[in-house]
Amino acid sequence: MAESKDVKAPGGRNDRPMTIAQIAELAGVSTATVSKVVNGRSEVAPETRALVEGVISTHGYRRLKKPAKPASLLELVFHELEGHYPLEIIKGVERVAGAHQLAMVLSRLDSEHTPGRNWVEGVLNRRPTGVIAVFSGVTAEQGDQLRARDIPFVLVDPTGEPGHSCPSVGAGNWSGGLSATRHLLDLGHRRIAIITGPSHALSARARLDGYRAAMDAAGVPLDPQLIRTGDFQPADGLAHTRELLGLPDPPTAVFASNDGQALGVYQAAHEAGLRIPHDLSVIGFDDLPPAQWAVPPLTTVRQPLTEMAATAASMVLTLARGELLTRNRMELATDLVVRGSTAPPSR
Amino acid sequence: MAESKDVKAPGGRNDRPMTIAQIAELAGVSTATVSKVVNGRSEVAPETRALVEGVISTHGYRRLKKPAKPASLLELVFHELEGHYPLEIIKGVERVAGAHQLAMVLSRLDSEHTPGRNWVEGVLNRRPTGVIAVFSGVTAEQGDQLRARDIPFVLVDPTGEPGHSCPSVGAGNWSGGLSATRHLLDLGHRRIAIITGPSHALSARARLDGYRAAMDAAGVPLDPQLIRTGDFQPADGLAHTRELLGLPDPPTAVFASNDGQALGVYQAAHEAGLRIPHDLSVIGFDDLPPAQWAVPPLTTVRQPLTEMAATAASMVLTLARGELLTRNRMELATDLVVRGSTAPPSR
Repeated sequence: MAESKDVKAPGGRNDRPMTIAQIAELAGVSTATVSKVVNGRSEVAPETRALVEGVISTHGYRRLKKPAKPASLLELVFHELEGHYPLEIIKGVERVAGAHQLAMVLSRLDSEHTPGRNWVEGVLNRRPTGVIAVFSGVTAEQGDQLRARDIPFVLVDPTGEPGHSCPSVGAGNWSGGLSATRHLLDLGHRRIAIITGPSHALSARARLDGYRAAMDAAGVPLDPQLIRTGDFQPADGLAHTRELLGLPDPPTAVFASNDGQALGVYQAAHEAGLRIPHDLSVIGFDDLPPAQWAVPPLTTVRQPLTEMAATAASMVLTLARGELLTRNRMELATDLVVRGSTAPPSR
Repeated sequence: MAESKDVKAPGGRNDRPMTIAQIAELAGVSTATVSKVVNGRSEVAPETRALVEGVISTHGYRRLKKPAKPASLLELVFHELEGHYPLEIIKGVERVAGAHQLAMVLSRLDSEHTPGRNWVEGVLNRRPTGVIAVFSGVTAEQGDQLRARDIPFVLVDPTGEPGHSCPSVGAGNWSGGLSATRHLLDLGHRRIAIITGPSHALSARARLDGYRAAMDAAGVPLDPQLIRTGDFQPADGLAHTRELLGLPDPPTAVFASNDGQALGVYQAAHEAGLRIPHDLSVIGFDDLPPAQWAVPPLTTVRQPLTEMAATAASMVLTLARGELLTRNRMELATDLVVRGSTAPPSR
């Protein structure tokens, strides 16, 4: 019994936690049995398990060979955890991580869009299989650091220039903006307002450009008063719609750049005594679960966030296997989902 | 240079990734400089960094002493990732994990409320600082396994019998149910319906018991037709409210056991052409962010989910330090939040 050479006399004073061999000797069972118990296997008789657990409870347990196998980790980093959006992303990454026996590490950056040094050091220390960053940039230096340690890195819904060096997954934001606006135009609207996302977000810019393209194609002149800069928050939708409804010639339809903003538009319409869609049509973007439970249910542009996240996770795993990506930039299509918040204008 | 004794001739064929000493020799810099680069420190001149990164890119890099420090992990496990609820919990655990330089591992059980064997084996292998399980049970055997490995385990919002062996954090569900119902009674309602959560959830049972206690105290007899068993889903709220509104003597108020259900009640009221709160008062439970953006804003009972999760994480860390908990079961208070969905009955 090579492993038992450092067994202390059972019952003697020993402040150090015991090894498997010591526990086995004290419990009068084989080391294989103790190993099964400490590794959570179920094929041990209950009374034997109880005996071994008793020894461990009294004396403690110390792994002899390697303390803990470094866990296989897949890192997911958000710049914030607000709204329903992060959960859709988490579900997609979790699906892929779970299928590959990877533990998903979730972190949040402190209200900055670029990961700080602490975050990079943590990642380098944990040496994950790969990193998925959401709606967030990484500096060139940080990208180099991850690459030098062969840690693959993929962006989901990137805010900034997609660039060529970092693989990314986005959605058809421009097409989504186009189809949302076209839907309102087809219903007969001409006074169509848009509340945009923040100016640093390329996704928001693409939605706005899709709106402009649809208006141009329909020959409807753009009215700068109807183009409002928001921040993807319900409060934007509320504040901007209050102002829009106060215009001499108010809009008959509002295109909100995400579903949360659209809920703020609902609130402003309610305050003003307007009925949706009869007095005001509203369209959102994302199709998060709350959209279908709004009253009336929200017409919106579906962005496949869960699939985008799963795609990003698969790309990370492809890179981690040392294979090449077929393409560095993936863009998943958006779909118009027509529900009850859009109708022909009543005036 | 003790560390350089196994350096291969720079430039010679060597298929194995290089150690820090080999990289230092090839790049003509000190091992300290290479170490700074591979550990993500920023105090290296850009051109030196580029040189070292270049060598690593070409030859690869192999950690000599320990491959990866086992990361310090805090595990958070959900039985599902639906609705807004998980995100509030994630924020609380993330706050505590971040403050203690722990990486948060998030996992989801496959539609079972009790963790399966794969999950336990994964946890035992990763040896986290501790585990926080949400709305989920753990078998006695699994509890023993975690305890035998000194992995502290705390439940948040447990579904089953809190028991004495496993520390847990819950909310004042009974008091919340009482205050919600009392609010409706104070407004003058007598026909008050409740849509409960699932029967296996103690939190749902406590809310129902609070409802009963308030009705009893007001001397209002319980009508079994007004007590509906739900599953915490918006679809419950919709289906049950359709039936409730079809009764010969329909309720004037509905107490939904969570905010999601309340949105389903809104939908059913809208379908029936009823205005909230004029024709039907609605009250929810949780006060998740969408509650304030419902039209009208939802009166609800605030459950401090983020604080509950942070409390559970702190309890895990206390146990991990080998200290005793002041109490094994913590219960955080709920608060009634009165908004626009409740008013005196109009008939």
